[in-house]
Amino acid sequence: MHSQHIFSHTAMTPIVGRKATGLVAATFTPLTPEGEINLSEIRPYVDYLLEQQGVKSIFVNGTTGEGMSLTVEERKLLAVEWCHQGKNKLEQVIVHVGCMSLKDSQELARHAAEIGADGISVISPSFFKPATAEALRMFLQEVAAAAPAMPFYYYHIPAVTGVNLRSRDVLEGIANQIPSFQGLKFSGSDLMDFGQCVNYSPSHWSLLYGIDEQLLGALAMGANGAVGSTYNYLGSSVNRLMSAFDKGDLPKARTIQFQVQDILCYAINLGFDLAVNKQLMSEVSGLALGPPRLPLLPCPHPKALSIAQRLQQILGEQ
Amino acid sequence: MHSQHIFSHTAMTPIVGRKATGLVAATFTPLTPEGEINLSEIRPYVDYLLEQQGVKSIFVNGTTGEGMSLTVEERKLLAVEWCHQGKNKLEQVIVHVGCMSLKDSQELARHAAEIGADGISVISPSFFKPATAEALRMFLQEVAAAAPAMPFYYYHIPAVTGVNLRSRDVLEGIANQIPSFQGLKFSGSDLMDFGQCVNYSPSHWSLLYGIDEQLLGALAMGANGAVGSTYNYLGSSVNRLMSAFDKGDLPKARTIQFQVQDILCYAINLGFDLAVNKQLMSEVSGLALGPPRLPLLPCPHPKALSIAQRLQQILGEQ
Amino acid sequence: MHSQHIFSHTAMTPIVGRKATGLVAATFTPLTPEGEINLSEIRPYVDYLLEQQGVKSIFVNGTTGEGMSLTVEERKLLAVEWCHQGKNKLEQVIVHVGCMSLKDSQELARHAAEIGADGISVISPSFFKPATAEALRMFLQEVAAAAPAMPFYYYHIPAVTGVNLRSRDVLEGIANQIPSFQGLKFSGSDLMDFGQCVNYSPSHWSLLYGIDEQLLGALAMGANGAVGSTYNYLGSSVNRLMSAFDKGDLPKARTIQFQVQDILCYAINLGFDLAVNKQLMSEVSGLALGPPRLPLLPCPHPKALSIAQRLQQILGEQ
Amino acid sequence: MHSQHIFSHTAMTPIVGRKATGLVAATFTPLTPEGEINLSEIRPYVDYLLEQQGVKSIFVNGTTGEGMSLTVEERKLLAVEWCHQGKNKLEQVIVHVGCMSLKDSQELARHAAEIGADGISVISPSFFKPATAEALRMFLQEVAAAAPAMPFYYYHIPAVTGVNLRSRDVLEGIANQIPSFQGLKFSGSDLMDFGQCVNYSPSHWSLLYGIDEQLLGALAMGANGAVGSTYNYLGSSVNRLMSAFDKGDLPKARTIQFQVQDILCYAINLGFDLAVNKQLMSEVSGLALGPPRLPLLPCPHPKALSIAQRLQQILGEQ
Repeated sequence: MHSQHIFSHTAMTPIVGRKATGLVAATFTPLTPEGEINLSEIRPYVDYLLEQQGVKSIFVNGTTGEGMSLTVEERKLLAVEWCHQGKNKLEQVIVHVGCMSLKDSQELARHAAEIGADGISVISPSFFKPATAEALRMFLQEVAAAAPAMPFYYYHIPAVTGVNLRSRDVLEGIANQIPSFQGLKFSGSDLMDFGQCVNYSPSHWSLLYGIDEQLLGALAMGANGAVGSTYNYLGSSVNRLMSAFDKGDLPKARTIQFQVQDILCYAINLGFDLAVNKQLMSEVSGLALGPPRLPLLPCPHPKALSIAQRLQQILGEQ
Repeated sequence: MHSQHIFSHTAMTPIVGRKATGLVAATFTPLTPEGEINLSEIRPYVDYLLEQQGVKSIFVNGTTGEGMSLTVEERKLLAVEWCHQGKNKLEQVIVHVGCMSLKDSQELARHAAEIGADGISVISPSFFKPATAEALRMFLQEVAAAAPAMPFYYYHIPAVTGVNLRSRDVLEGIANQIPSFQGLKFSGSDLMDFGQCVNYSPSHWSLLYGIDEQLLGALAMGANGAVGSTYNYLGSSVNRLMSAFDKGDLPKARTIQFQVQDILCYAINLGFDLAVNKQLMSEVSGLALGPPRLPLLPCPHPKALSIAQRLQQILGEQ
Repeated sequence: MHSQHIFSHTAMTPIVGRKATGLVAATFTPLTPEGEINLSEIRPYVDYLLEQQGVKSIFVNGTTGEGMSLTVEERKLLAVEWCHQGKNKLEQVIVHVGCMSLKDSQELARHAAEIGADGISVISPSFFKPATAEALRMFLQEVAAAAPAMPFYYYHIPAVTGVNLRSRDVLEGIANQIPSFQGLKFSGSDLMDFGQCVNYSPSHWSLLYGIDEQLLGALAMGANGAVGSTYNYLGSSVNRLMSAFDKGDLPKARTIQFQVQDILCYAINLGFDLAVNKQLMSEVSGLALGPPRLPLLPCPHPKALSIAQRLQQILGEQ
Repeated sequence: MHSQHIFSHTAMTPIVGRKATGLVAATFTPLTPEGEINLSEIRPYVDYLLEQQGVKSIFVNGTTGEGMSLTVEERKLLAVEWCHQGKNKLEQVIVHVGCMSLKDSQELARHAAEIGADGISVISPSFFKPATAEALRMFLQEVAAAAPAMPFYYYHIPAVTGVNLRSRDVLEGIANQIPSFQGLKFSGSDLMDFGQCVNYSPSHWSLLYGIDEQLLGALAMGANGAVGSTYNYLGSSVNRLMSAFDKGDLPKARTIQFQVQDILCYAINLGFDLAVNKQLMSEVSGLALGPPRLPLLPCPHPKALSIAQRLQQILGEQ
């Protein structure tokens, strides 16, 4: 993790963090069996990502991390611990600070800045949905203004939020409203919108793609990296996919992408949701991530085990 | 407002509050021009509802009240003031305590009990959506358990939450899991589901309908009352609708229902959302409700004025 | 069936058919076990409706009749036989002539006029969807113009077509474009839109409601009658519901409505689609309606039998 | 166009047509100003595609061709003319024979075989939607059986049909049910499903992608070619995109893809539908394609002209 930022003196890019690239694991939030946050599991979690998966950046308190099911206080405690454990080990710790309430988001943004996070990210509020790209941009601006030195990433995930505004429209003129703007986590399947974002972005922004099962398509369209939950346990494989892509070896990249798809299809056919995903990570990594919080129900152990075995089988075929 | 509860001694209904009937206004949250909560406007608001609209019960911090855009602390301050101002004047002050986070909901439920609210209501979490009726019921149960003496209402509003579980399925066996369960705010257009809820409910539950523009259909299906935002400014008219219905005068009830629809259609054609609705209430009532909070954008004054004028014109035709 | 029409001389209502009221059964299309149309089952079908269900009007080749799965030639043969068997027995035979292709619809409209149907009805094309109410009205106008003396009903069923235009907007000025316009089959749950249609309609139009499980709500809103598939086997019960409603006996009407809902909920929980519905009618009536046509798959016999038994049980409780 | 087929003697691939690759234009249907099919414009249309766009294959009577708005007889006349004009000039003439009615589809399939088309394609019926992949596969099988020597392509376009079955599931075991099966027109943005289809397909199948604005992503995932409406007027550019991709020149491919996106975004912001698309083709090509058929409304001339000018401007920047 690098807390120093490069302050540029040009009008367009007054504040620039280190550009996020490569794989970013969207971390699960460890809970105790009783459902309380379990900070003690974070240190081994960071080590697992680095040592077993070769993943050097994380995105915490996001969708995978059940951020919206946590209180503001819990999110702060978690952010502190992830930043502390990642210090001098991880390249980037990006803290998701999006909330339904603007004021809660602002508080979390200020807090992230205080604890030395590498960046913050904000999802669109989804209970009350912004009617236009301008309304969303204003919301993001108000959050960013609470932590003006924090590299800021907009997090686009329309299938979850139900907010179907095109990212490209949200980006329009955003550098003027959010000088710290630095990129996008784009978790949508609309690659025209994604391509238009790539085309619009200055070179210091980072375009991170968030639908793991079709990453290869987004790389072709110009993605700089990827944020996703599966990189917790498939990071090693997808690192090879990205290397192959970078070397122009599309057949190899495709083979790995198809393996990832095979694993996810197997999971989807069994019933795949965040609770299953979390339990799967526990099975694969040996970490004690605990149950999800309501309204999610715990995943039956045999289901996650079956997926974990299929995963090992498919990756063993490599 | 009545804080005393009737404690029944039967196994099925250990705790019963006074049954909510008639019209319940889902209140807007007064904000200052700067966007802070404005507690001073609550007293005249209560008086307006009683004196100008004949509305004797309120539902606070819900969808109309922008509850999800407020912090936990703001919601507490508002609940205190609504309960205080409603004491000995209103029949029921129901406090919405639903949040994305179970822990936040529990905290608000406990608080509502402490301040002497007449009931609490909980919407389904919508960022993470319960996969089954059982999952949702468990979530509701955990909230209710934090305030076991509070009459508890489930708030069903699938078009907003995207949670398409049938209310009837949520009600299955709920009295065993939530002894304080006392009814439903049903804001959906599926009158089969609503009818099935009516048919399933014991007589002390209250079935409150929440789509104001088709209330008459729900009354025919057995609704006990209604909760809605338009009763803030159309309560007087809709009270007449309900009286006509109770007397078996369907043509008169229908005439008033069509007037309500005419007003709402006019508004919808101009672009009707919560921000417009809030500004409309300011225009009609003279209360200073202020702007909405982001991600909602303020309504242009002329638009709300135009709807207010149409409203006066249509009701004047009566 | 009455083929004579009352020709009015006023500008507003140049052509008027007998107003459709009461229950209209949306008929299933009898097929042979091999999947060919089975005209010989139509005569006993008409007798069954009259004698066992007290249903005096029918709507043929519609959604229930798998009209869109039939060829133009098959639809003609069926329309001829329904009109022939209904002559002097039924009050109204309304032939659905909607198709994806305007030309096919026009051909079926002309044919319906030639064979003496009592009215025609047209659903919105749904592969290519009209972008505006005006576009849809123009489509309807072109069909109606091919059979200008046929009473014309617009058939609104947004959940099936995906065409979410408000019926009220489609009705705007329609009497000028379609002098033979005579009403609506409204199969939607939006009772504001339905109420607005009721309020807009001249007295000689017929507002027929099409979601059987919430008919009571629509009657309160002003429906003149109902078209639905369940009236094939629940007509007798729903006739009692309508009588009770007409006499102001809402509790009785509600009791019957809840029975209908109980039956349908039971069916829905087992998996209820048109194929199941068709087989259920065969079970209840003893008619040999045969399988549905692909892409629908035949309903397993035990499933339909189970629903039929539940139906008898619930109605026996009456 | 090549009417001879290679009959293989293996069990898996008894019938194989020439594999479709490269760009396939989904042709518009020329209509007269009065709305009748205009066969005389087909010859110059074929020449335009070959000479101006370098497009050698066509897909006729599909979505772009307003196939569902045409009668069976009109579709036959059009298929005959396209095959006749394409003979010895085009590589492939694929005739779309999908209809809401299985019997109509079978008739068109037989006809396509008689007139020497190179392949047939079938979309899922969408008024009645197949409930499972098996139901859809059975529907496709019945059509294919009517023309067993015709190379058969399944046409997947969920955003239009509302049929959300995964293509991969439809492909399961399809070679056994449809020996003439030869590929897919995949018009969806779910590249996991597409990738899984690529991975499952034997080498003689053709995986054609159908969302023009994100073709590059699908090429990375293994697409063999593309079918789309924009290749009518952007074929020349997209041919260069495909060449660049084949040579491993991703930056160049991306540049062209972004140009295509820029053009389409411009069009979408103005309101882009099939009617506009058709008029745009008339503007760009000089062909007299006429208006669309109802329920589509003609595109105002200035709108199409504006898009055509933007197109020229963007491509001129190349």
